Amino acid sequence: MKKKLEQLKSLLHEITDLNHIIAILGWDQQTYMPEKGAAERGSQIETVTRIAHLKYTSDELADLVEELMNQVNNMDPDSDEACLIRKTHHNLVKQKKVSTEWVSEFARVTTVAQSVWEKARANSNFKMYQPHLEKIVSMRRDYAEFFAPYEHIYDPMLDDYEPGMKTTETMAIFNVLRPRLIQLIQEIGNHTQVDDSFLHQNYDEPRQWDFGVDVLNHMGFDWKRGRQDRTAHPFTNTFAMDDVRITTRFMPDYFPSALFSSVHEGGHALYELGFARNLARTPLADGASMAVHESQSRLWENLVARSLPFWKFFYPRLQRVFPAQLSGVDVKSFYQGINRVQPSLIRVESDEATYSLHIMLRLELEIAMLKGEIAVKDIPEAWNERMQTYLGITPPDDALGVLQDIHWAFGGIGYFPTYALGNVISGQIWQKINSDIPDLDQQMEKGKFSGLLTWLRENIHRYGAKYEPQDLVYRVTGSKITPEPYLNYLEKKYGQIYSL
Amino acid sequence: MKKKLEQLKSLLHEITDLNHIIAILGWDQQTYMPEKGAAERGSQIETVTRIAHLKYTSDELADLVEELMNQVNNMDPDSDEACLIRKTHHNLVKQKKVSTEWVSEFARVTTVAQSVWEKARANSNFKMYQPHLEKIVSMRRDYAEFFAPYEHIYDPMLDDYEPGMKTTETMAIFNVLRPRLIQLIQEIGNHTQVDDSFLHQNYDEPRQWDFGVDVLNHMGFDWKRGRQDRTAHPFTNTFAMDDVRITTRFMPDYFPSALFSSVHEGGHALYELGFARNLARTPLADGASMAVHESQSRLWENLVARSLPFWKFFYPRLQRVFPAQLSGVDVKSFYQGINRVQPSLIRVESDEATYSLHIMLRLELEIAMLKGEIAVKDIPEAWNERMQTYLGITPPDDALGVLQDIHWAFGGIGYFPTYALGNVISGQIWQKINSDIPDLDQQMEKGKFSGLLTWLRENIHRYGAKYEPQDLVYRVTGSKITPEPYLNYLEKKYGQIYSL
Repeated sequence: MKKKLEQLKSLLHEITDLNHIIAILGWDQQTYMPEKGAAERGSQIETVTRIAHLKYTSDELADLVEELMNQVNNMDPDSDEACLIRKTHHNLVKQKKVSTEWVSEFARVTTVAQSVWEKARANSNFKMYQPHLEKIVSMRRDYAEFFAPYEHIYDPMLDDYEPGMKTTETMAIFNVLRPRLIQLIQEIGNHTQVDDSFLHQNYDEPRQWDFGVDVLNHMGFDWKRGRQDRTAHPFTNTFAMDDVRITTRFMPDYFPSALFSSVHEGGHALYELGFARNLARTPLADGASMAVHESQSRLWENLVARSLPFWKFFYPRLQRVFPAQLSGVDVKSFYQGINRVQPSLIRVESDEATYSLHIMLRLELEIAMLKGEIAVKDIPEAWNERMQTYLGITPPDDALGVLQDIHWAFGGIGYFPTYALGNVISGQIWQKINSDIPDLDQQMEKGKFSGLLTWLRENIHRYGAKYEPQDLVYRVTGSKITPEPYLNYLEKKYGQIYSL
Repeated sequence: MKKKLEQLKSLLHEITDLNHIIAILGWDQQTYMPEKGAAERGSQIETVTRIAHLKYTSDELADLVEELMNQVNNMDPDSDEACLIRKTHHNLVKQKKVSTEWVSEFARVTTVAQSVWEKARANSNFKMYQPHLEKIVSMRRDYAEFFAPYEHIYDPMLDDYEPGMKTTETMAIFNVLRPRLIQLIQEIGNHTQVDDSFLHQNYDEPRQWDFGVDVLNHMGFDWKRGRQDRTAHPFTNTFAMDDVRITTRFMPDYFPSALFSSVHEGGHALYELGFARNLARTPLADGASMAVHESQSRLWENLVARSLPFWKFFYPRLQRVFPAQLSGVDVKSFYQGINRVQPSLIRVESDEATYSLHIMLRLELEIAMLKGEIAVKDIPEAWNERMQTYLGITPPDDALGVLQDIHWAFGGIGYFPTYALGNVISGQIWQKINSDIPDLDQQMEKGKFSGLLTWLRENIHRYGAKYEPQDLVYRVTGSKITPEPYLNYLEKKYGQIYSL
């Protein structure tokens, strides 16, 4: 038994190393690789991916997991070992159900679709992209069939990102969220808009960089265990227990973009840097789910870094860095400006109040496409109708509408809900933290975030992927995933900002 | 036969990808990796090294090469295919003798040793590094035993860097070199020293960087196929046919350091960028040997970039970049200054006349350590004694002595002699180039290096690792490796500079 466990770990160490290496190759490609290195880099990533896949689908691993599963009930169910066995078993069972032909065909289809999508978006030409999306939707239907019988056709896809989470659970949460968000936005629309013109000035990039580093330092980001670079799209990548890297991008005439990217990715990175050391080089050294991961990035980005206590500490520092731009703006006006609610077309640029509605729209369309209730050719129209219903605006073209996200093109149907679930979970965690640390606001006003980080490490980070998201949230908050705390947070915050 | 060849290439493509990935992991470690990532990076390198080694020692590859070797005599012996089969066979025979355990253990040991070496050098603390070096020397002894019986314990290691080259051949060349170099240095010491005080001023780093880039541009370095970064120790690394990266380091108060590092590594890079495209992703897309590689870097660094014609073009440009430092110095004084011969402590900063003596010292110590004639703990003392004998100076501390080079830390015993052999070969090539391009000096005076680069590509670069170094040098120059041309070059050059 002990020997089998060691064999399992050793195999998983190897596979984890290879996955980290794929991440390193991708990071280098997006940061420092010379332009013409791309072709051979593709071959290298393909080679390592193939080797990792062969190891993951080997009889050796399957047999080991099978044998260990027979004994997992004799183990402490919360032990690292039991969790590792269950997690690996869950992944292997899923993987085994999907045919090799489907996997390689899907890889081919989505590779082509991504490059077509890029052109389609540049030309705002949905027709060009439509046959590729049709193929992806059709293949995703086939994918669901591998898992028949299922409760909901969307379940097998959602489970890839949110292990154990059901579509009906997710929709129940969204059904509470939707009307109250729409109402909140309408109320805000009926009140005087806040000014954020001071954010739209020239902000020198090196000083933006330094201020972002100052904030990351206070958050507790350890530069001996990570770094920050510039890329076209911000992301976080993990190469090792002690090597987690974030990226950001700068807009010279809109200060919040780089800062909140840094804080958001910093939140992801602090999670990755907080896994217990004995989970190293296994699939448990990972986030519990995409939504739990997003709860960490969103918590730091929004509940911390868009709060008044945070800026009571940082705003005088920021004013010293950008005196010309900000000397005439007081902290309250600044706080209101960075929290301005304004229905807009692009998800990634949207504010806290409208963001989740962008997600619900996508989830509804994904399900409708899978069920054949809306034909792929009619998706742009359906998109625009829902934008009007939820946010009161209509995209002038598909580039600013249905073509804005890469997710469907890479096949990631099932991914979007995790963003809104992350918001919801961040609200639950925030409520619990504030009850456990009653003077958290006062700590933040003094620039102290170590109490917060310690709490997150103790209660969430260290567990890595040991527990499924619903289970983890229950362990932390005593409740399943529920939207009330997040809605209360939003309604209180915007009630004050907009005097609702 | 054709199918077998395709199978061989496909296997070698995979192995080459893995080796390039190991290089990427190492480059990242020395450029951008956060400090604490080292331990798990070691595991990752170990994992890929082990996989590559298993593939390289697989029966599948051995059987293929065996079968193809039986038919290689029916092929054009100079064809890419015949060379690939022979080269792979040579490597396989060597690699098969070494145990997989040794390879992965050595990867682990040297990864840790490198980060210890960095700290040890920073603190001039040999004791800290000593156990790691002891382990490396001991493992290198074990390595030699895999090849027993050998003519010389050093042969198996030297052969890794100089295929086909013997320790006794190398020592024979060094035995001609040593007395004439020592005599040359003594004669120079008896003549009036040239002034180089103008080099020891403050030279702004960004302008140093830009001037280095200007020189690399003229050399023909293609930034779409490579890049330059800063590291503690300059090096060149190849990740793909179109992705070759160099590094340099800056001394704010000694201008030549960064420039000649850039040119030196640029020479390596031009070689790597010049391999024929049909050698891609095979072991033939490599230098013929480390010495041939070094002949390219040294040729650019010394025979080109420390020549008077080179500076007749570049010196006015340099004066424009650093007017305060150089406006009062004429080109001849500058040329003499950058060629000043002065026995000094640091190999990489040493001049052309003394450089090879630094190498001979290292070769002698390596052999003595391997044979157990000098204990590792006594190496600092032995180092200092030889420095006194050959160069008449003694390092004040180990950072400036035995700890100055990274090579032993990465396990590269056997590597050093290739530097001096590279000098020797560069002299032979230079003689031949000047006979083929009689107006080379005039071209260089006009800043034209494309004729030189074309010659190098045509006669050396494109062949990659098709031929063993002795064979390649013979094909290019009509002679085996011989020190006469290099000694003649040095004696003529310094005869003029010092009016000997």
